[in-house]
Amino acid sequence: MKPAIYLDYAAATPMDESVFAAMQPFFMQQFYNPSATYLAAQKVHKQLEAARAGVAHWLGSRPNEIVFTAGSTEANNLVIHGVMQQFLTGAHAEAENANCVVSTIEHESVLESAKQYNYKLAPVQANGVIDLAQLENLIDDKTVLISVMYANNEIGTVQPIHKIGQLAQAISKKRRAAGNKLPLYVHTDAAQAAAYLDLHVARLGVDFLTLNGGKMYGPKQSGVLFADAHARLVPLVYGGGQERGLRSGTENIAGSVGLATALNVVQSRRHQEQQRLKILQDLFFNLLEGQFGDAITINGSRDVRLPNNVHVTFTGHDNERILMELDEKGIMCAAGSACSASNEEPSHVLRALGLTDAEAQASIRFTMGIQTTEADIRTVVAELAKLIRA
Amino acid sequence: MKPAIYLDYAAATPMDESVFAAMQPFFMQQFYNPSATYLAAQKVHKQLEAARAGVAHWLGSRPNEIVFTAGSTEANNLVIHGVMQQFLTGAHAEAENANCVVSTIEHESVLESAKQYNYKLAPVQANGVIDLAQLENLIDDKTVLISVMYANNEIGTVQPIHKIGQLAQAISKKRRAAGNKLPLYVHTDAAQAAAYLDLHVARLGVDFLTLNGGKMYGPKQSGVLFADAHARLVPLVYGGGQERGLRSGTENIAGSVGLATALNVVQSRRHQEQQRLKILQDLFFNLLEGQFGDAITINGSRDVRLPNNVHVTFTGHDNERILMELDEKGIMCAAGSACSASNEEPSHVLRALGLTDAEAQASIRFTMGIQTTEADIRTVVAELAKLIRA
Repeated sequence: MKPAIYLDYAAATPMDESVFAAMQPFFMQQFYNPSATYLAAQKVHKQLEAARAGVAHWLGSRPNEIVFTAGSTEANNLVIHGVMQQFLTGAHAEAENANCVVSTIEHESVLESAKQYNYKLAPVQANGVIDLAQLENLIDDKTVLISVMYANNEIGTVQPIHKIGQLAQAISKKRRAAGNKLPLYVHTDAAQAAAYLDLHVARLGVDFLTLNGGKMYGPKQSGVLFADAHARLVPLVYGGGQERGLRSGTENIAGSVGLATALNVVQSRRHQEQQRLKILQDLFFNLLEGQFGDAITINGSRDVRLPNNVHVTFTGHDNERILMELDEKGIMCAAGSACSASNEEPSHVLRALGLTDAEAQASIRFTMGIQTTEADIRTVVAELAKLIRA
Repeated sequence: MKPAIYLDYAAATPMDESVFAAMQPFFMQQFYNPSATYLAAQKVHKQLEAARAGVAHWLGSRPNEIVFTAGSTEANNLVIHGVMQQFLTGAHAEAENANCVVSTIEHESVLESAKQYNYKLAPVQANGVIDLAQLENLIDDKTVLISVMYANNEIGTVQPIHKIGQLAQAISKKRRAAGNKLPLYVHTDAAQAAAYLDLHVARLGVDFLTLNGGKMYGPKQSGVLFADAHARLVPLVYGGGQERGLRSGTENIAGSVGLATALNVVQSRRHQEQQRLKILQDLFFNLLEGQFGDAITINGSRDVRLPNNVHVTFTGHDNERILMELDEKGIMCAAGSACSASNEEPSHVLRALGLTDAEAQASIRFTMGIQTTEADIRTVVAELAKLIRA
């Protein structure tokens, strides 16, 4: 059997060696509780704060705006619940029936959290890009939060976050002039974007931004919520008051140091890696179209797209069979988000693009990463040609 | 300088070598998302389920009653919010004004969560053991949850959880006879108890039990909530539906495997380690009393106590100074819970025992562990003798 070809980097990434090396001292040696008072523990605390500053550097934020969480699901929940819950209490008279607006193609951790409150769904166009005019129409005087993901986990579409930030600022300005004191926060889930895109929060114009260590060659169950110092949040988890009181619990030193190291790795090489993968992505698309022509559809915009994502519908072919047969050839890829792989529902993202259930169930996601080569892509398309013809 | 003496095992434990060895393969090699469909990912999924079964073994529960969390703070929050939130909606007519009863010496993660709902505080006696008669009096027809920690993190007192379980069962029986359909759940936070006490949930008579990997030679930010299959919980974090829908997010394979390994290590050696530490604890108490006599007070029951905890008030001496001077001698210990070390409030646990603020601020916690020796104890008391006399 040939060596395995892994094309599911959107589901999980192997930890970078430098990340593992950075984490290792905190398991058996520098294991101290960073809240303890002795010098050895204070040294650990300093390393945690250095990790926080390292993350803040890439976001252009202040270190105290970085909240370490156990992954991006928790970070997304923290921002949705943390913003929306404060408007349930009636403390803000004008906030009764406050709502949030989220896109139809958000990750389940945003969608399912938003469903606990008044929420509206902002549609995307057939190419997977949010419809800005419709988004603007959905925002009313009671909207306090907009959450649109930076890059989609299934189809790789990159959203115009900067324009959404500008829109929110313009609306906020009008609100203030009209005496409406409600905030209009913008959140973006950058879990899939972090390895390839600019994360500078001021340039993006966001109040909240989510990162996930496990999707960028860092540790699983490590995440970040950037929360602007002026934004108000209610905590999700109460206790000892760690992380500005927003996220109690003995700190995950190894995980936080690992995430910061990983972010440094991916952001340092992102231009170079984006170029390299863009070439492979174009090759992948061209080989697929050359091989299958009209028998396939490529989903999602090809212009505004992560460089590592290739998402294809093999019309009339069951994706489960293809995945299984590829797996037998040592090729690992996905029908969609691993997060929802266990339920049998067709992807809500593909439905939002207008695909039928049958089309969704004929679709496959290939996501490339650091170890992907041109030979891998040629092998995969050759194997697909055999499977689909057969 | 002599090698350091670490006596703060209640705040953090060094990872056991076998735990590190068990975790290591999941960082760079078996990094796959356990929800993915290919064989390599399914193998990872199996290892996660093996870890779950391993934890269930020591609790005498079914594997699907084990929910992996990011530490015990999250697990405690999940049970408090998860039980109490379902009675806020008004779906249960009889549940309006439902309440929970928690002890005055609970960890902040229980206390601060409980404060978000109707709650009552069950007092402890001067020896730190809960007053069962008062607890019984506090439970009314609207009480749906009792949360009492198995062993206290500051003074090591072990609570009669079995009796609380029996009490709850007797009340539940009367309730059903009277047509009151409200549940009366019992939760215990066993974060500090796991290395030394029996964790069998049926013998304890609990519906929920919390574990913390980071306090038992496992990874930080790994935790477990045992949730009885019949108990209803609302999730804290929404998303992909992992962990029975109670705790979404890509699973922490390394952390869960590490926690299961650690639990196996500590539970396998608990009788032996309990005996060993009990001898050191008696020596510690005797040396302190021989040295300081009436100038000190030992806090908390000496009969029902974790074998690794020594908590002393050095009347009239500022604990910050003692801690700092001990640190200079290479001795690491604590003024109280590391979780609240950063705030300047005297410990709520010591206040609950009836100590004055001045007494609380003259108190020191020593918590022993696997590397603690008789020589360490003798050294510490000798150094204390120099400091306190000086």
